Formats: sequence, C-alpha cells, structure tokens
Amino acid sequence: LDQISRNAAQARQMQLTKPQGALGDLERLAVRLAGMQGRACPGADRVSIAVFAADHGVAAEGVSAYPQAVTGQMIVNFSRGGAAISVAAKALDAHLRVYNLGTVTALEPLAGVEDQVIAPQTGNLAREAAMTQAQLVQAMNVGRLAVEQAQAREAVIDIFIGGEMGIGNTTPATALAAALMGLPVTDLVGPGTGIDGAGIARKVAVIERALALHKPQPVDPLEMLRCLGGFEIAALCGAYLQCAQQGVPVLVDGFICTVAALLGCRLQPQLGDWLLFSHCSAEPGYARLLDHLPSFPLLDLGMRLGEGSGAAVAIPLLRMACTLHAQMSTFEEAAVSGASL
Amino acid sequence: LDQISRNAAQARQMQLTKPQGALGDLERLAVRLAGMQGRACPGADRVSIAVFAADHGVAAEGVSAYPQAVTGQMIVNFSRGGAAISVAAKALDAHLRVYNLGTVTALEPLAGVEDQVIAPQTGNLAREAAMTQAQLVQAMNVGRLAVEQAQAREAVIDIFIGGEMGIGNTTPATALAAALMGLPVTDLVGPGTGIDGAGIARKVAVIERALALHKPQPVDPLEMLRCLGGFEIAALCGAYLQCAQQGVPVLVDGFICTVAALLGCRLQPQLGDWLLFSHCSAEPGYARLLDHLPSFPLLDLGMRLGEGSGAAVAIPLLRMACTLHAQMSTFEEAAVSGASL
Repeated sequence: LDQISRNAAQARQMQLTKPQGALGDLERLAVRLAGMQGRACPGADRVSIAVFAADHGVAAEGVSAYPQAVTGQMIVNFSRGGAAISVAAKALDAHLRVYNLGTVTALEPLAGVEDQVIAPQTGNLAREAAMTQAQLVQAMNVGRLAVEQAQAREAVIDIFIGGEMGIGNTTPATALAAALMGLPVTDLVGPGTGIDGAGIARKVAVIERALALHKPQPVDPLEMLRCLGGFEIAALCGAYLQCAQQGVPVLVDGFICTVAALLGCRLQPQLGDWLLFSHCSAEPGYARLLDHLPSFPLLDLGMRLGEGSGAAVAIPLLRMACTLHAQMSTFEEAAVSGASL
Repeated sequence: LDQISRNAAQARQMQLTKPQGALGDLERLAVRLAGMQGRACPGADRVSIAVFAADHGVAAEGVSAYPQAVTGQMIVNFSRGGAAISVAAKALDAHLRVYNLGTVTALEPLAGVEDQVIAPQTGNLAREAAMTQAQLVQAMNVGRLAVEQAQAREAVIDIFIGGEMGIGNTTPATALAAALMGLPVTDLVGPGTGIDGAGIARKVAVIERALALHKPQPVDPLEMLRCLGGFEIAALCGAYLQCAQQGVPVLVDGFICTVAALLGCRLQPQLGDWLLFSHCSAEPGYARLLDHLPSFPLLDLGMRLGEGSGAAVAIPLLRMACTLHAQMSTFEEAAVSGASL
C-alpha cells in the first residue's frame, strides 16, 4: 500500500466542499483505493471480471435445487451474454472472461470461455477429498493465470472481480466456513439456490459427515481447501492472492467468494489490505463471516446469485466515490466558508 | 400504478436465468418501476434533479456549524459544477436545476439556477411561524413548477430527485419529524453538518421551544409545515405531490427530503406508491423515520450530505436493476434447466 497517496487522498477529502465525513463510506473507499492504486485520485473504470466454473462431486448427495447440467448450461449462457454477470459486465464496460475448470457435461469451445478443465467434477467431499494435491495446485494456478491474463490485456486494472458458478457449491463453501471459523454447521447452512427444509437438513448432515471425515485443522488452510473445497473456490483463492502480490484491488462478491477470500487471508494475512467487499449475501452463513472480514461490505440488497454479480452491482459506487473525490471543488477553489462552530 | 405492467415484470423476473429472488431488491425495484412507469421493462436513464435552496431564520439560534453565507456560496458552487450533486449529476448524465427560494446573501444571476426568491430567509421557528400562509403556498408551488419544467424539457422523466441546501435545515426537519411521529426531540436530534455536544443541546432546546410555541397538530400537516418548515422543505413536498399526480417515480434523498416526503404522505397517502428511498442517512433521526416509510432505503453508506447526493449515488442501482431485467435471458431462451427439487 502507498501511504503517501493514501494520505494525500485523505487530505483532499478534508478540503472538498462538504462537511467532513458527509459522504460516509464513499470517502473511505476513495482513500483506501488511493492507497492501493498509488494515486491520490484513484479510479474504478478499468474492471476485469473472471468467472470460475466447475462441478462438484457432492452434488450426488442431493444438496442443490438444480441438476448439475446447469453448470455447463450457464457457461454457455455466460458466453452468449444472457446471464446476470454478462449483462452487468457489458453495462459496466468491464472485461469478462470465464474459466471452465471442469463440468460433468462436456462443452464445445465457446467465445469468452477458457478451457482449463481439471476433471469433470471434484471428489464427493462427504466420502473423499474434493481434490488431489495436484488438482488443488492446478486450480489455484488457474486463478493466478486469470489475473496474469487480465494484466496482459490491459496495462492497468483498477479493480479485479472474481465470480463463481458450480451447482452445489454452497456446500463446500459452508464446510470451509465452518472449518475456518470453528462454528456449528447449523449456524451457517442455507438454501443456496433454493432447497427446501428437507434439503437443508440433508445439506447439514452431508457437511457434518465431511467435517468428521476430514477433520480440518485451522493451522492448515490449504489442506482444508483440498479436502472440502472446489476447483472454482481454489481458483478464486489463487486469483485473490495473485492480486495482492501484484497490487491489484479486489472487489469480493458474495458468500462463496468471501469464503475463498477468508481462506486466502489465512494463507497470507496481508491479502486483507487488498480486499473490498461488495455486498452482504442473503445466504445465512454470510452474517457469520462479517466478524472475520478485514472490512465491511458496501451493499445489503438481499442478493444471492453468485457469478460475481453482486460485485458488479457495486462497481458504480466505487466509480462514484472516485469521481466525487476527483471532481468536487475544494472550499478554497469554490470560496465557500468553512465550519464556524 | 399500472398493475398489468407490474405483473408482466413480475412474470418476467420468474423466467430469467437465476434462482427466483436471487437478485433481491434489484428484482423488487424493477417490478415496482414497471408498475409506476407502465412498461414491463422500465428504465432509469432519464433522471431529473431539482435542488431547492433557502435560508432559515432559526440559524440565529446557533444551530449549525456553518455560517448562513454558505447557503448562497453553495448555490454558486452548484452552478459552477463543484458540489457533490453537480459532479454526480454530470457523471449520471442527469439534468440538474437549482431553485433559489431565498438566501440572506443576494446572488447574481447564475447558470442553471432559477431565481424564485420568496424572502431572504424564513421566520425563526423558535419565536414565530417559519412562513406565512402565502409563503407556504408559494414555496410548494416552486416544487410543482420544478416538476413541470422538468417535464417540459423531456418528454418522459424516468426518475425525479429532489435535493436541498439550507444552513440550519436539520432543525426544521427534526422539528417536523418530532411533530409528525409524536416522538421526543432528544430521540431525533443530531449533529447536522457537524455541531458538537453543546450545539446539540442548544438545538434540542430550540426545537422544544418551537414545538411548545406552535403546538403542531397531526391532523393539520400543512399548518405544521408552515410553522416549523422551510422554503426548500415545502418545495420538496410540493414537488413530490406533483410527481405522484403526474405519475413520475421519485427517488427520495436523506433525512430532510424524507421528512418532506413523509409530510407529503400525510397530505396524500397515495404519494407513498410513487416513492423510492435511496439511503439511510447517518443523521440519527433517520432511523426513527424508517418505521413510517412506505418502503425501505436501498443504501446504508453513512452519508449525510444532502443536496440530493445520496439519491444520485443510488441511481446506478436502479439502472442496473432495469438493465438486468431487460437484458438477461430467460430459462427457455438460454436452454437452461429449471429447479429439479
């Protein structure tokens, strides 16, 4: 982080024609981004979005409302521009690239989709490790690659967004959240894309079985990720760590991305300095994550879609924060009197 | 409201490629706007902002951190493009017009500022009525005029935003809030632009004196507005009522605008159907308004600037809600499987 730029931004905020602090979080956002980007007037125009998609062996346990075929179908939908993240990326003039880490239905080559298939799906975490060591490394490297590719395309990335798609993936994310925070599964589990009460009970039992089988240890977050994670969750974690290393600010999406970010922070605590959080997910486990995050989410709109969609929705707030910061007049420029009391 | 368009929008939301409800408030926004605008695919591109500015006799009681000259200075700042609302309006490609209802410092003609001076300031509500009956009518008519002028400029206004500027105006707004909700002043009063503890105690005493003097009656909100209000607060109320009459959706800004909207709802309960609320103001009284609003605010970013700035910051959310609603593929179009459980 660049403390000189951060301090310059802070000093500028105090001179703009408004009561101090009156723009609330927008002021803090501009100041934080200044420190990350090393510019007294930061920006959020150049946004790069990578969506990581993969299938999950644990779907066999009946933990999702949707069939596994939807993962592949949604990759096609991303490519054709019909999914929420595709529409949002276009509206934001952001670059969107999809990474296919492996789906149960084979896919033809698709525009905007990069084939990085590791396996058709992960192992069923209720019965075995989700990934081998080699698969874990491979998945995390796809995340790193996505950031490298984004940086190769554009000289500067103002904000990186990671998204995810994978039928069943709130189950590994909830298992990881329980292991990372040491909380009971019942405190965290939720409906995901929309399972009913019986489905939720089944999901609790599946995650408890997985935790009893793998006995995840807080001191070894990578092993936790290998046993309980998913290809796209590992890729997100790898992407976030690469962003921190490269000095690229990250806007973290909802529940699954936030679990990947929290895991990344356990591996590399300085990652937290590079993370902004877009929104409170409606997935119940998110509320329990809040105490463990290095900063607070911007929005609370009851969103629970994934794909990076919540982060995309928050981008205009970052842009507005930067525009106000850069373009408002100072008290001196505008000849406005300061506070008298 | 157009129930056919609203129902068509609701039906469309259920067909889009996402779990039902996964876009949270963005879905509800698109559906509500459809009902207001009478189109199954609503929009938020054409935004019209009117900022009403005026001075307050009660400033003589020492209730603000800033000198009264700042009201006029900020009108100049609006005109020159340096204020938060000017910068935001430009970023949003929204039309901004400022209405000067009367300031203690006389102003030269300014670009984008309409001279509608009623008096240099209101009466000091702690000692006398803020307005005469004629002044109240005149102020409300400036609000109506602003909506008429906006409609004359553009064939269709998707969203109307009212803003306010007036040193001391959290004092009349808090007095009105206390009278409207029947709550103790100490539950509502806050620092406004930034007074300290002694200033807040003074503000409480001033408002309590005003309430004891005028004895506002819930059955007569207009008389309440006349005795305790301000020119810009009355103009906002008039503008909102005109919007409801003309079928123009309103995005209500923070504490002062929300008090004006609540007052408008007492005069005409159907106004509530046309109101969207942009953000929770950091002014403490706002939290007590929440129970009385017809719908919930979108953002909670600790903003407390006024000018319509919070509403402007929320416009991109409305635009994103409309864009996702219009452009996402349906399950059928994308050949994505529906929920199986």
